[in-house]
Amino acid sequence: MSKLKGNLVIGQSGGPTAVINSSLAGVIQEAMKHDEITGMFGMVHGIMGMINEDFIDLGKQDPADIDGLRHTPSAALSSCRYKVSPNEYEKILEVLKKYNIRYFFYAGGNDSQDTAKKVSSIAKENNYELRAIGIPKTVDNDLPIIDHCPGYGSVARWLAIATRDAGLDTEAIGIVDNVKVIETMGRNTGWITASTALAKEHENDAPHLIYLPEKPFEEERFLADVDRVYKKLGYAVITVCEGLVDKNGEYITASSRAIDTDKFGHRQLGGVAIYLCDLIANGLKIKARWDKPGTIQRVSMVCASNVDLEEAYMVGKMAVKYAVDGKTDYMVNLVRESGKEYKCTTDLVELEKVALGTKKVPDEFINAEGNYVTDAFIEYAKPLIGGDLPKYSRLKKIPVKL
Amino acid sequence: MSKLKGNLVIGQSGGPTAVINSSLAGVIQEAMKHDEITGMFGMVHGIMGMINEDFIDLGKQDPADIDGLRHTPSAALSSCRYKVSPNEYEKILEVLKKYNIRYFFYAGGNDSQDTAKKVSSIAKENNYELRAIGIPKTVDNDLPIIDHCPGYGSVARWLAIATRDAGLDTEAIGIVDNVKVIETMGRNTGWITASTALAKEHENDAPHLIYLPEKPFEEERFLADVDRVYKKLGYAVITVCEGLVDKNGEYITASSRAIDTDKFGHRQLGGVAIYLCDLIANGLKIKARWDKPGTIQRVSMVCASNVDLEEAYMVGKMAVKYAVDGKTDYMVNLVRESGKEYKCTTDLVELEKVALGTKKVPDEFINAEGNYVTDAFIEYAKPLIGGDLPKYSRLKKIPVKL
Repeated sequence: MSKLKGNLVIGQSGGPTAVINSSLAGVIQEAMKHDEITGMFGMVHGIMGMINEDFIDLGKQDPADIDGLRHTPSAALSSCRYKVSPNEYEKILEVLKKYNIRYFFYAGGNDSQDTAKKVSSIAKENNYELRAIGIPKTVDNDLPIIDHCPGYGSVARWLAIATRDAGLDTEAIGIVDNVKVIETMGRNTGWITASTALAKEHENDAPHLIYLPEKPFEEERFLADVDRVYKKLGYAVITVCEGLVDKNGEYITASSRAIDTDKFGHRQLGGVAIYLCDLIANGLKIKARWDKPGTIQRVSMVCASNVDLEEAYMVGKMAVKYAVDGKTDYMVNLVRESGKEYKCTTDLVELEKVALGTKKVPDEFINAEGNYVTDAFIEYAKPLIGGDLPKYSRLKKIPVKL
Repeated sequence: MSKLKGNLVIGQSGGPTAVINSSLAGVIQEAMKHDEITGMFGMVHGIMGMINEDFIDLGKQDPADIDGLRHTPSAALSSCRYKVSPNEYEKILEVLKKYNIRYFFYAGGNDSQDTAKKVSSIAKENNYELRAIGIPKTVDNDLPIIDHCPGYGSVARWLAIATRDAGLDTEAIGIVDNVKVIETMGRNTGWITASTALAKEHENDAPHLIYLPEKPFEEERFLADVDRVYKKLGYAVITVCEGLVDKNGEYITASSRAIDTDKFGHRQLGGVAIYLCDLIANGLKIKARWDKPGTIQRVSMVCASNVDLEEAYMVGKMAVKYAVDGKTDYMVNLVRESGKEYKCTTDLVELEKVALGTKKVPDEFINAEGNYVTDAFIEYAKPLIGGDLPKYSRLKKIPVKL
């Protein structure tokens, strides 16, 4: 195979994460090793940067700044959620030619993998040689086939820590604030919410109840669940997915915002925790408070998982290696090796198999009652958060004897 | 002065924090040095533990667990918000006598300092010798006289980091999610919200606007502020206090919860961010999202300030030293030394001067427009968060030349 000489372009798409800049660093640092890659351009605001010819020259950056990306959250190139129209794909083809771009990398979720696939298609249809590789990224962890998505391990660690802290808080002051409801991100799947279970070290630790959109929400069962925990412990910590739905697939609460649909037609959610607090106050006559950490949970470097940071870097590097090796129309896949020690390696999965697909939390990861996760989920998720949570101390309940 | 021999009791009251257990460790470890303190009891759920004779023996704990308290958030003894009734003070007097308690320490905010004062009063009125010392603690930072309250530096660090992260997130995806509103804690004062300004390193960094309850909220000015920032940057990050009020002193939005008043008559707040997002969507026709980290912000050990942890430990130790030294009816005060290097030492302030008082953010810390803090506030708050925020990297906007 002859070397394909030309420029490289990389874009970041969808919601920012703690580790998507690690993937960017991986791409840049790997690309510098390959002389067929003559220049490196960063799309500003993802695919919109291609359409608008808005690029940053990545080859002229300070190497220390590139290294620093491995510990910088959000999306250094700026991101987008943009559905490209057919005539804009024509424009993208022009830009590919004009800038002699032969390597196209796009980091994102299922919408972004679809965009990568379509960019490749327009090039193919016009006999323009291009290597297009998708780089997985989504805190939602909902891409098909891949073991888990870069970004997920870090949001999971953030939520494990936050839920444990919130649990200690509620344990201490639960006689006043009886119930805490934490609303997590998760548009259509419960992966993020499920990760709050990683907070639990002992039987009575938070979270006590977990509700995922994979199981239709039922008010009466919910109230009975909360009542049972409250009667046992005197308080309860509940984690719930923003995308919770009822048996008709309707979101449990409507957003209170007037403009609530993004360009892909995804509804912006909010408010399920408020709704549940009302339900608890009215149904059980006990006080409930809610936390909705929102986007703060997805971009925290303080709680980033080392495993996640390393894997995000690896998928960036491997994307370049695969492309230089002649591969195109694939997303880099993370494959968990068998064996006791956790280890992931990469291979490739066709873009068409992941584009627009959604992997829900499977039944084996959700308990029969639909109000918690199983040990199988813990086994799956625990290695992803990069080690134990910080050690805390607990006083022994030694009574005073006169 | 002859030594007052007897037992020590300590309680934790009000909202948990990252550092109130450091104060507890300080009390215990200092008390062990003084032979006139014959036993150490922890009140379970603060003053309720006194009334119910519900104590933990702190003298029989593993010393490693006591050390570990210095890095364990929440309130290890469990907390309360409990207004003691007159006949319960009689019961407390009985318990003091029954357990030969001569040293009474109570860590909390202004309600708690009032409780400490009243416990001391009932003892005095009955000629029972007792040394009662208050230990300052409140993330709200609203105790009078004291330079700042243990707990505040850590919530401030948490919010500085979270706001910087949210700022990078919004900068990256602001073309989709135009405005981010972060609702912080703060019942009646804006200290916590103001601390978000510590996120800003460069002119255009988040937060762009800060709204405190010390300045009445005006919708039209608010919308004009947001519009100006949005037109300049293409996005905006706003931080707002949950206790925001209008010119009549009415909270900007009512809580949606049915049970919303605690035992002291404080209203539980929630929902101002939702209200502002609606206002922005309707008034400016741009999309706004909100984050409400809630109680998660107040108990995070991952973001705890080292300065705060050390000072919380110090006020615990000093409380014991002052009491052994014969002092009573005081709260331990933190006094900022003059000079370039930040340093706080302790002295004492009468409990009656801090009980039930509230220190608002002064005018010199709020800008003339009422939409940001001043440099004087930054100078005040910066040393409290215990050092710089983690270093991030930023790519240079070097255009691609063909």
